[in-house]
Formats: sequence, C-alpha cells, structure tokens
Amino acid sequence: MKNYSILILFAFVSLFSGLYGQNQDSLILRKIYDYSLTEGDCYENLRELCKEVGPRLSGSPGAARAVEWGQRTMEKYGFDSVWLQPVTVPYWVRGDQEEGRILNSKGKPTKVKVCALGGSIGTQKNGISAEVVEVQDFDELAKLPREAVEGKIVFFNRPMDKRKVNTFAAYGGCVNQRSQGAVEAAHAGAIAVLVRSMSLDEDDHPHTGSMHYDTTIHKIPAAAISTNDANRLSQQLKADPKLNFYLKMNCEDRGTAESFNVVGQITGTEFPDEYIVIGGHLDSWDTGEGAHDDGTGIVQSIEVLAAFAELGIKPKRTIRACLYMNEENGIAGGFKYAELAEQNNEKHIVALESDRGGFTPRGFTIEGDTNVFLIRRFAPLFKPYYIHFFEEGYGGVDIHTLRTSGTKLIGFVPDSQRYFDYHHSEADVFENVDQRELQMGAATMTSLIYLFTEYGIQPGADN
Amino acid sequence: MKNYSILILFAFVSLFSGLYGQNQDSLILRKIYDYSLTEGDCYENLRELCKEVGPRLSGSPGAARAVEWGQRTMEKYGFDSVWLQPVTVPYWVRGDQEEGRILNSKGKPTKVKVCALGGSIGTQKNGISAEVVEVQDFDELAKLPREAVEGKIVFFNRPMDKRKVNTFAAYGGCVNQRSQGAVEAAHAGAIAVLVRSMSLDEDDHPHTGSMHYDTTIHKIPAAAISTNDANRLSQQLKADPKLNFYLKMNCEDRGTAESFNVVGQITGTEFPDEYIVIGGHLDSWDTGEGAHDDGTGIVQSIEVLAAFAELGIKPKRTIRACLYMNEENGIAGGFKYAELAEQNNEKHIVALESDRGGFTPRGFTIEGDTNVFLIRRFAPLFKPYYIHFFEEGYGGVDIHTLRTSGTKLIGFVPDSQRYFDYHHSEADVFENVDQRELQMGAATMTSLIYLFTEYGIQPGADN
Repeated sequence: MKNYSILILFAFVSLFSGLYGQNQDSLILRKIYDYSLTEGDCYENLRELCKEVGPRLSGSPGAARAVEWGQRTMEKYGFDSVWLQPVTVPYWVRGDQEEGRILNSKGKPTKVKVCALGGSIGTQKNGISAEVVEVQDFDELAKLPREAVEGKIVFFNRPMDKRKVNTFAAYGGCVNQRSQGAVEAAHAGAIAVLVRSMSLDEDDHPHTGSMHYDTTIHKIPAAAISTNDANRLSQQLKADPKLNFYLKMNCEDRGTAESFNVVGQITGTEFPDEYIVIGGHLDSWDTGEGAHDDGTGIVQSIEVLAAFAELGIKPKRTIRACLYMNEENGIAGGFKYAELAEQNNEKHIVALESDRGGFTPRGFTIEGDTNVFLIRRFAPLFKPYYIHFFEEGYGGVDIHTLRTSGTKLIGFVPDSQRYFDYHHSEADVFENVDQRELQMGAATMTSLIYLFTEYGIQPGADN
Repeated sequence: MKNYSILILFAFVSLFSGLYGQNQDSLILRKIYDYSLTEGDCYENLRELCKEVGPRLSGSPGAARAVEWGQRTMEKYGFDSVWLQPVTVPYWVRGDQEEGRILNSKGKPTKVKVCALGGSIGTQKNGISAEVVEVQDFDELAKLPREAVEGKIVFFNRPMDKRKVNTFAAYGGCVNQRSQGAVEAAHAGAIAVLVRSMSLDEDDHPHTGSMHYDTTIHKIPAAAISTNDANRLSQQLKADPKLNFYLKMNCEDRGTAESFNVVGQITGTEFPDEYIVIGGHLDSWDTGEGAHDDGTGIVQSIEVLAAFAELGIKPKRTIRACLYMNEENGIAGGFKYAELAEQNNEKHIVALESDRGGFTPRGFTIEGDTNVFLIRRFAPLFKPYYIHFFEEGYGGVDIHTLRTSGTKLIGFVPDSQRYFDYHHSEADVFENVDQRELQMGAATMTSLIYLFTEYGIQPGADN
C-alpha cells in the first residue's frame, strides 16, 4: 500500500509539474517572441553586417572585418565567453575584369553581364571567343559527338523546376551544372562554361556560387549569366547557331589565408557539459552583401544567446553561437569547430543551423526519422506563432561535421519562395530582408533552443 | 441476406471510391499548383492592373478602366458568362494640394508629407495652422480639459502593437484613431486631426484609409503622416510643446458615381444551383497601385476560374469570380452582389475572399466554430504545399453581406508580416509582390474551391 501511495503521489506530481512546465514554457516563449519583435537587435545587427562590413568572401579583407565585427558584437552582450577559432581558408579573388559579349555570325556584339563562378580560373588576358553549345544536362552533353563540343563554350541552361514548392529541391535539381559543369565540359573538349543562374526569377542578375575542378582533367573558366540573358542567348542560338561568345575574366586562386570562426557561450547551470550550438556562416559571396546568405543566420544565432542574456533566462545546458567561416567555398570553419569539439571532449547534444534566408519561419527539419519526435513534441507550443513544420530533413552544411559525434542536427526552415531571387547575387542586400520576418525567425530559433536547454534530448524527460 | 450483401457491397464501394477520391483529389491539387506555378497568368494580370490601369478609387476614371480591364480579362478565358452589376459608389477626390509643415515656436518650418484620409474634407483654401495635442487614444483625449484641445490639432499617435504575430490584430488594435478620430477630436473642440500611419514599419510613407464623420458633430480635416514623421513630431512636441502644425488639403466629396462589380461564371455540371463565389475588390486607394490591396485578390480570384477552364476541370457546382467595387470606402459592391443573389434566388453555399495581400499562403479562416470542420477536413491534401492554417475567423468585408443567407464565409490567409508595410500607401506597388508567393496563393485558393465544387458543404458527403 505504501508503495502504491507513493506511485499515485508521484503520478499526480508529474502530472501537475508537467502541466505547470508547459504553461511556464508557453509564457517564456511569449516573452522570447515579444523580445525579438520589440527589443531585439537582429535587424540593426544585420544592417551593420551588410552596410558597414559588406561582402566577406573567405580570405578577403571583408571577411577579416566580419570576424572583428562578430567578436565585438557578441562581447557587447556580456556572454560568459567569446573567442576565436583559427581556420585556414581558401582565398579566391574575382578580379576586376569581367566581360561577356554575344557576337552574332556577322560579328555584331551584344553585352552580357557575366559573373565568374567561385573558384574559377580566369581566361587568357585578352579573353576567349568561341561558338556556344547549349545543353540541358550532362547526359545531353555526353551524347554529343566530340567535334560538336571541341574548342567551344558549353552553355548549361537547365532551369530550376518552378513546380517544386520547396525551392531548395528545385535548386538541388540543377546545381550540378554549376558545381560540376566545368569538369564535365572540359572532358568533352570545351574551353569554357556558361551556366544559367540558379534562380526561379526572370531577372538580370547573374548568380555566382561554388564550382569544382578535379584531377581528371584540366581547368576551364566558368561563369554564370542571368536567367534573362540565358533565355536570350538560347533564343539567339536557335536563330544563329554559329554565333560566338566572348568571355574575359581575371579571377585567380591565391592559395589560402588565415581566418576564424567566432564563438560565444553562455554556460549551462545544471548540465554545463551538454553543449548546444547554434550557427550560421559569417563568410559570404562577394557579389551582394550576403544579407539572406547568411547574414540573417548570423544575426539570428547571436540573437538566440542575446535573448537569454537580456531576458535573464539561465540555460540549464551550455549554449553557443558559432559564426562559421568559409561555408561558401570550403566548410573549413565547420570542420574546425567539430575537430575542436572532439579534441576538447565537448559533448554536443544538439546543433541548429540557420542558412536558408531570413524569411517568415515555418519550422525545423531534423536529421534521422527516429529523431523527429524530439522537435515535434514541442509543436503545440509553437502554434500561436504559425510555426507548423517539424519534419525529417537536412540539418546544414556547417553542422553536418558533428554528425559522426551523434549530435542531433536541426535545420531552421523559413519560407523558401523568395530565397533564390537573391541567393549569391548582387540582389542579396539588406533592403531585401524584412524586419519582422527576420525577427520572427530569431524568436522561433530561440524558443526551440530554450526548450532543448530545459528538456535535453531524453524523450519526455523533464530534467 | 440479400439486403446484407448489398450493404456490404455498398460499404466496399464507398470505401474504395473514398480512397480513390482522395488520391484523385491529391493529383488534381498537384495539377492546380503546377498550373499556377508555371502557366498561370496571375502575375502578368497583376502587372497590367497595376501598371496599365493603376490606382482605381471608387468613382475615379481609374476605377472605370479597372472595370473594363476586369471584363476584358475574364472574357479572354471563355468562362460561361461574364457580366457587370451596376453599383452606385461614393466619389471622393484627393485633390492636388497636400501640404504639411511643422512650425517650431520660433516659426522655423520643416516639411512633413501628409496624406488626406479617405473621405476627409479639405482645409480652408490657405490651409490651417494650430498647436498640436498628442494623445494615444480616445480615453486620453476625453480626460483632457476642453481648453487643452479647443482650436488645436489632435495628433493620434498610438503605434501598432509589434508583439502581435497576426498583424491584422495589431491593425485592429489602433485603426479606430483613423476611422473615428475626426469625430472624437471634433467633439473635444479640435480643428483638425493628424493620425500616425497604420504601419509596423518605420518609414516615410503616409498611409491613407477610410475615415468617417457622423451627424453628431461638424466635420474637421483628417490626414495621415508617416511613422517616422509621427516619431519626429512626438519628439519635437516634447522639446517644444508650443510648435504649430500647418496643414493644407483640397480634397473634396463629389457625391456619388455609377460603377460596377464584374462577375465571371463557370456553371456547375451536377449542382448548377449551388453557387460558390470567390472575390477580391477591384477598387483601391489612390496612393499606390493597389497591388497587395487588392490587386492580388483580384487576379487570384480570376485565376481560380481560369485554372478550371485551362485545366479542363468541370466544376460540379457553379463557381463565380466577383471583382467587387468599392470595398475601401463603402462596400457598395458587396451589398449589391448579395442583394442580386437574393433577388435571383441564387443559393450561395460558400464565399471565399482574398483581401489580405499576395503573400505566401498559410491557409483559411471560416466564420463560425461549427463550420471549421468544413475546411479542416481537407487539411491533409494541403500538407505538401505547406498550407497548415484552418481555423475559425473572419471571412471578409465584401462577402460578409452574404452572412444572413447562411453562406459559409471563408477568408484566404496569407502570411501577414509584410502587409502593413505597403497597405494604403505609395509603396503598394507591383514590384513589392513576389511572383511565386502570389501564385502559391492562387493555387491554394483554386484547390480549396475545387474541393468545395466536388464535396459541397455536406459533412463527409461525396456527391
């Protein structure tokens, strides 16, 4: 009987504390959203990062300024500690000469805005000129006889699939022409590559992005053209298959440079040895201001810790914001962070990445279908904020380096409809970020992290 | 036994057709989304409405052009019929003189952009100048002694509450200072009213909107100033309480004018006497291009019928797109539609309104908590499109006129974070509408309407 009484008492207390906990949690989430929507600094921080620091490709002076800015900004909030992790990064420079021209078969030129893909070699000093072979994909390229490609410029013109509601799926469906196009085209005998920009919009911005060479074949220059120019070029090729394209770029690989991840920490009060890291990437492409990619992830990650600090919430577990260096063309920062975590025996239970733009938040993806319950258990608390998406899916490029340690990898999911209008182009500027959408995202991330600091990753455990 | 066999057979057939139905429905929804995201015209239609027709306040030449455009556009698709419903609308004209100036107590002027509220009288020909009394709300105004307000300009400066995640709730929380401010201020002895713009953004656009007079008190002029100017004026008043504000406007009431609702119809194949109407409002304020308010609702409503026509889907029930005239300052079109529906004995089972902007769709609200199941039963079909919000809530201004007929009133719910940045201001232009967000909304509306044409409003009935 005594045992039974204790069990019943325990059940009552559990029930009561469970309910109390949930009510408390919903009040704290409300405070977090109120903070971000009224007092949070993420929008002003983004303005600084975009307008004062500006573009910040790995190795560049802009990246160095970004590191200083990140350290200074996090120190302002009085986190328990802020430090730098040295990272060796690639150093590629666009150069100051990018020219493109369509020369019709009568020799009449039309200017085309070109943009070297990140990592591309330059052309000869005076540029190159050759006929253009348009293909949709590698299969179509492989089917062409060698003489149809030899000495020419291959033009990959596969558009993103507009039917994909998740625009990242549309991106995934054609990004290989950008990343691998130069290798495939060189194998087929081409002397350069033009790629249709990875954008769902029809506009005049060429969108850059990383591309690779490999040891199987020599390097050829690779450039993006805008979707409008890709459509025009394709049309003109139909009317005038012998037209030439003139391309001149003086981009160059300058080897490596020394840079840093910037890390801030608030130490947990009850389980300081359980780490939760929140991150975005501090580097950006050099074409815009890296606003949505990934300035917004940076200022949101900082805001997660800032909200704890400013609201006086003491996390039970240790939380870190990591501003990763070199996501765009190397992931050196992501690997360095994971290497140091292992070296220092820091058990990372959760990593959250924000690198899909600063748009209205929809929810989160978590890697591994058996892990979905870890985020879905909190769904009811998010309903007042229109956060509804708790599904299995990718975590993120920088945090995937923690996968082998068993860390639960979570990706922040904002609405994706506008992302590729801006991504990697001169249109990725502060003005194209909406203040409230950014703030809603920051609050949503902070809320999830708060719940993980409270409940950890034990199912149902109210630690 | 025989009867039993028939029952069992019937159960099997029902089960089978039920499953088949859901699978078919999901395939048709996929076709609808594909259509809007790739072939639909709503974005091009919006470009025409914004750029060729332009602003279209009731009674204005722009509104007349909009009616012609609406009729021509719907006729293009070959709907079963397209016609006009004559509507008598108010005709208010802004005039060409709007001036505002802060005059500090030393007489030094600073220009302020002002914007007459819709329906306001003008000032005296040479403008008026008076001291300014800032209040947050009607209670604060009522507590002031008469001599503190007499002969002065009342400045209503209550901001929208940024903590409201649903920004329409924030709007609802302070729009009375715009709609009723002139009456309250006149009662207190004021000679004019300035109102802080209904915007969550801090920018330089004054936002207009409807305001009312009543028979209890004489009319005084009423104007909006931008949120930035409201903040500046408030600050300057603290430092210099005796400053004057100079206001000049020559807006005028020109009585009434004749206009039209534009209606298009595809007649139902099985239940032609059950009507479903989808609408937005064709009129707009005169300050921008009426892009989000409500050009997007107009082109989405047209697209619902266009998608049926272009995809060859024959609706079982009759569907109509109604482009309502005069939502902004009168609802004459909404009332006329309901009056004619009653006169013609047209049983409207469902009305859907899109008048919350052309942003990423979230879902729908339906009036009456016992009706929520009517939309929620379809929720699983919408999950692939990130549509998750099926709740009780307001239908819309134009369709509320059908409420007494027992029509189920449904409001389309897009994301609301950016809406009030543009609403009723010069920033409400085509360029601020995202193509894919608009298209996703059109597809979401079409999908819901398709399901209602199939299943009607009988719970679970597979007609």
